[in-house]
Amino acid sequence: MYRPEIRVVDCTIRDGGLANDSHFTSETVRAVYAAVCAAGVDYVELGYRNSKEMFSPDEYGVWRFCDEEDLRRVVDGIDPAGTKMAVMQDAHKANAEDVLPADESMVDMIRVATYVKDVDKAIRLANNATDKGYECAINIMAISQEGGRFLDEALQQLEEETSAKAVYVVDSFGALYSEDVQFLIEKYRMYLKTKEVGVHFHNNQQLAFANTIESVIRGANYLDGTLYGLGRGAGNCPLELLIGFLKNPKFKLEPLLEVIPKWILPLQAEIDWGYHLPYMITGILDEHPRTAMAMMKTERKHEFLDFYRQLTEGPAE
Amino acid sequence: MYRPEIRVVDCTIRDGGLANDSHFTSETVRAVYAAVCAAGVDYVELGYRNSKEMFSPDEYGVWRFCDEEDLRRVVDGIDPAGTKMAVMQDAHKANAEDVLPADESMVDMIRVATYVKDVDKAIRLANNATDKGYECAINIMAISQEGGRFLDEALQQLEEETSAKAVYVVDSFGALYSEDVQFLIEKYRMYLKTKEVGVHFHNNQQLAFANTIESVIRGANYLDGTLYGLGRGAGNCPLELLIGFLKNPKFKLEPLLEVIPKWILPLQAEIDWGYHLPYMITGILDEHPRTAMAMMKTERKHEFLDFYRQLTEGPAE
Repeated sequence: MYRPEIRVVDCTIRDGGLANDSHFTSETVRAVYAAVCAAGVDYVELGYRNSKEMFSPDEYGVWRFCDEEDLRRVVDGIDPAGTKMAVMQDAHKANAEDVLPADESMVDMIRVATYVKDVDKAIRLANNATDKGYECAINIMAISQEGGRFLDEALQQLEEETSAKAVYVVDSFGALYSEDVQFLIEKYRMYLKTKEVGVHFHNNQQLAFANTIESVIRGANYLDGTLYGLGRGAGNCPLELLIGFLKNPKFKLEPLLEVIPKWILPLQAEIDWGYHLPYMITGILDEHPRTAMAMMKTERKHEFLDFYRQLTEGPAE
Repeated sequence: MYRPEIRVVDCTIRDGGLANDSHFTSETVRAVYAAVCAAGVDYVELGYRNSKEMFSPDEYGVWRFCDEEDLRRVVDGIDPAGTKMAVMQDAHKANAEDVLPADESMVDMIRVATYVKDVDKAIRLANNATDKGYECAINIMAISQEGGRFLDEALQQLEEETSAKAVYVVDSFGALYSEDVQFLIEKYRMYLKTKEVGVHFHNNQQLAFANTIESVIRGANYLDGTLYGLGRGAGNCPLELLIGFLKNPKFKLEPLLEVIPKWILPLQAEIDWGYHLPYMITGILDEHPRTAMAMMKTERKHEFLDFYRQLTEGPAE
């Protein structure tokens, strides 16, 4: 009783790269790629194709740029078994010229990440991608803070001015509850008559998987997940939970159960993603996790009450 | 915009006791009690009132029995500020005679935990409790495996033959998805015309909090949570998330943010609750977590694929 239109996107390396400046070893990326392909996942996003003027290659790892030769090297000899490759471009931090014609590239889909205010930049990058022969999706970030008419206008524009296959609800702050999800997906579906709705949730309140299920019920068909939830801050919808839930027999859980202990759990030594109260607090308060991420690196990482008071009471007079 | 009928039950010490044979220090119990009272939570469940013939006091801590003098000692001098005290009796492991008349006891509510097959024992204990002057609730465990007519019959009996205030959906295996929750709460409400519906979820699939929200939407009014999700296996709905979600101004998050780092996080040294793939696997397969708990104590705790194959393929021929 599965819905054949559903597409699952693994973005372990891309979103995880926000937690380690995209410094994954080639062996890790290769192992993730092989497992996700073997699991029958529809897309695997291996990083950003962002600008080297905006991000210094001295500071950031190669998965912030996804040069074609890095992609080619890392997947060499692995059977994609139908899994397509995606990279992400940030609307305000990427160049159209960095994208080759699709038939000269390893990449199948370009996902453009944008804030509502940058939607015109996103449309330009999205059209650049589809003009060059790629599939395209557009991810609207920080959606929990977009209450007003600008979101409606952006959705209308995306419907009329792009050939993107999907437009995403991205809960960057992990702030949405199920009723918010329902409201947003209804709104998206009202405007996006020719496109699919996608969803990408963060797990600050342990709701990323649940909100993904709610989205499926409400008609979203593009679903993001990451291995063991690896990602910025609290992380994302765990891919293994999503694959365990979806009934499409093309998906296989076993390759995920094998890659996680071998390649993902060891990353816990350097990246502290998951349920931690600083992330939970920024989620509840609907704030960017940057203050929580900074706090998690200090010795005061367990002083939750002080942190909460800081954010809710403001500085002392 | 809160619903005044909602009652929150903290069962940190009671459910957590399933992970450490109820061996909490008095200082821990006292700190939890004080914080939960200060947070304005409606009930705090400090353990089981189970039979000393069924559980050896040499092996189990005092919170498996909750003798009146232990309860009195541990709350002495703390202002309950309206928070009522609960203990749990297992229908098949507790004695009616161990319950004093309510006016001689520290306890306000007795919760009777039962499998559907033991419902007649549960009714006897529930009526013993209400006859002696206590509030009473009945928790139906392992509900994910109760598909047939026996559950309907049990609900009908509980409605007609007890004065319990609430009857609970207990997802012992962490197997329920939101649509299952919806189905069960509708069924409960159909039979339980004079009682509230309660919910107690386990977090094997990171759905305990989400399923609690879904239950609120569907009309459940008795909600269980534990501090930082402490509990058997993957643990429970984190009380701090639930309090962060509910809008009733009587609830306060701050005491929970203070007690968790001081008294709950240190317990991680001895109890490994939370999201771990063995628990996730038994949740997906709708099985008791005992195999996962056993595996978590071995050196093979990360061999998820072998564990999954063991449970799905059975022993080699």
